[in-house]
Amino acid sequence: MAPILLNCMGNDHTEYMKQYVQVKNPYLETMEEDILYHFSLSTKTHNLPEMFGDIKFVCVGGSTNRMKAFAQFIHQELKQPGNPEDLRDICEGTDRYCMYKVGPVLSISHGMGVPSISIMLHELIKLLHHAQCRDVILFRLGTSGGVGLAPGTVVITDKAVDYSFRPQFEQVVLGKVITRSTELDEGVASELLQCSSELQNVPTVIGNTMCTHDFYEGQGRLDGALCSFSQEEKLEYLRNAYDAGVRNIEMESTVFAAMCRVCGLKAAVVCVALLHRFEGGQSTAPHDVLVDYQQRPQVLVSHFIKKRLGQII
Amino acid sequence: MAPILLNCMGNDHTEYMKQYVQVKNPYLETMEEDILYHFSLSTKTHNLPEMFGDIKFVCVGGSTNRMKAFAQFIHQELKQPGNPEDLRDICEGTDRYCMYKVGPVLSISHGMGVPSISIMLHELIKLLHHAQCRDVILFRLGTSGGVGLAPGTVVITDKAVDYSFRPQFEQVVLGKVITRSTELDEGVASELLQCSSELQNVPTVIGNTMCTHDFYEGQGRLDGALCSFSQEEKLEYLRNAYDAGVRNIEMESTVFAAMCRVCGLKAAVVCVALLHRFEGGQSTAPHDVLVDYQQRPQVLVSHFIKKRLGQII
Repeated sequence: MAPILLNCMGNDHTEYMKQYVQVKNPYLETMEEDILYHFSLSTKTHNLPEMFGDIKFVCVGGSTNRMKAFAQFIHQELKQPGNPEDLRDICEGTDRYCMYKVGPVLSISHGMGVPSISIMLHELIKLLHHAQCRDVILFRLGTSGGVGLAPGTVVITDKAVDYSFRPQFEQVVLGKVITRSTELDEGVASELLQCSSELQNVPTVIGNTMCTHDFYEGQGRLDGALCSFSQEEKLEYLRNAYDAGVRNIEMESTVFAAMCRVCGLKAAVVCVALLHRFEGGQSTAPHDVLVDYQQRPQVLVSHFIKKRLGQII
Repeated sequence: MAPILLNCMGNDHTEYMKQYVQVKNPYLETMEEDILYHFSLSTKTHNLPEMFGDIKFVCVGGSTNRMKAFAQFIHQELKQPGNPEDLRDICEGTDRYCMYKVGPVLSISHGMGVPSISIMLHELIKLLHHAQCRDVILFRLGTSGGVGLAPGTVVITDKAVDYSFRPQFEQVVLGKVITRSTELDEGVASELLQCSSELQNVPTVIGNTMCTHDFYEGQGRLDGALCSFSQEEKLEYLRNAYDAGVRNIEMESTVFAAMCRVCGLKAAVVCVALLHRFEGGQSTAPHDVLVDYQQRPQVLVSHFIKKRLGQII
């Protein structure tokens, strides 16, 4: 039995442990209770392994309505029992985020911007850890401004980059700035691109995604309450972004990529471009066209999940 | 008539114009339509002067439920006609923010973190400008972690400071970092402190408020998914913050102060400390105690508004 035991405790054991969701905090194991405050859940009041132990796919997005709609959509796609209209918000004790579970899929909202998604990710990663989840893939499904793309194009993020087009995220820890890599999983991105080629009406590219901390001045919009630059300066910045491989702009991808990477979670960012930023800052597309655009990342990720679950061969 | 005309066009005119809410964007006046996308309002589809022209006080806070509760509370306090339960969310066309109008008071949610409140503030300042509002005061009502304070203490912000305790906000504009002052209105802060002395059970101090972009690592919490520092290092950072005059920590005050200042708006930040951060990262206070704490900024600002409206002498 010795060789088997050795394998168990050696590389294979490391590989086996790697499949679990890892936290990078030695204090957590010593805590009597962990309150996931912004989810209104706790290790004392909820049986997290029972509630969430079978989760394999976590889909996150900014808007509560959209993540509820996604939960109802994937409920139908996966042919789950029961009525999708009856799905219950697991975080109903708080208005910070909403959360729906559909079989092995968790759908959660994260609000707008890096700080808002970062709070959610800390508590989500702890939740997946406490629940002893294994082999989980995370997807951010969002909307974005397009750079050199037709509105409605879906962008699978290659690298999430900051305002200077660097693939890094600056995190302040006790007043000191540290830098984390924002590389995402190449395998999942390629698999998603393959999925898009199997679908109608989901034009998709792989490109870099710029993450800003502001919707107006940071993204070169001319229609905020404050604007101190010219149309030409705006276009020059967006052209530089394009030359650096940026194909869309949103507000959460860098911290999403960085935190998933540190915790060994496979992750992908899938955002639709609602408008072409070379042309303007406000979308004038009709409501039904925008609704169709917003569903495209959902359709793509749903197709990926169904393939992984063997529901599409 | 000449002297009067001169006065009108000279300093008095400047003073008169100053009372209006100013945008700092020359392009806005040239736009045929301004879509306030995240409010689901527009200059073409809504008569903003008619809807909002009488607004004198704008109260903003992170949580949608809390800002709805504040609207219902101020409705009763100001003895407005109708049923407070019937208040309609003006932004019901979107789930990004909620907005309620009660006489001269507007109550709006802003989500969590600087990017989320910054989108709201751009569109709010444009709304107040389009509506030709005058003499408006903005209040941020929030929750926070206390530094050297008993839980339940309300902090009126003197200076909003960053993670290095500097009273400034760094804004990225087209890839370049610019710095804005975060000084708030001293007169409004003093008036609020005076109001607190006229109330029971609203213990209040004036102090600096540290604004971070993260709830866990940035605020020295030991209970996030990631933690790379010791209890001693955490305490040293919080002690340094205390020595720099910081009395509470939250996630929106710097950009709130900076944007209001640039646009000439009087503004105040009023947050209750839910816990004492020297002692831990998670609040263990019972639910009803936390509810009482969260109402204190609302009670204080409501008292201020009633005094200003002459309902309390």
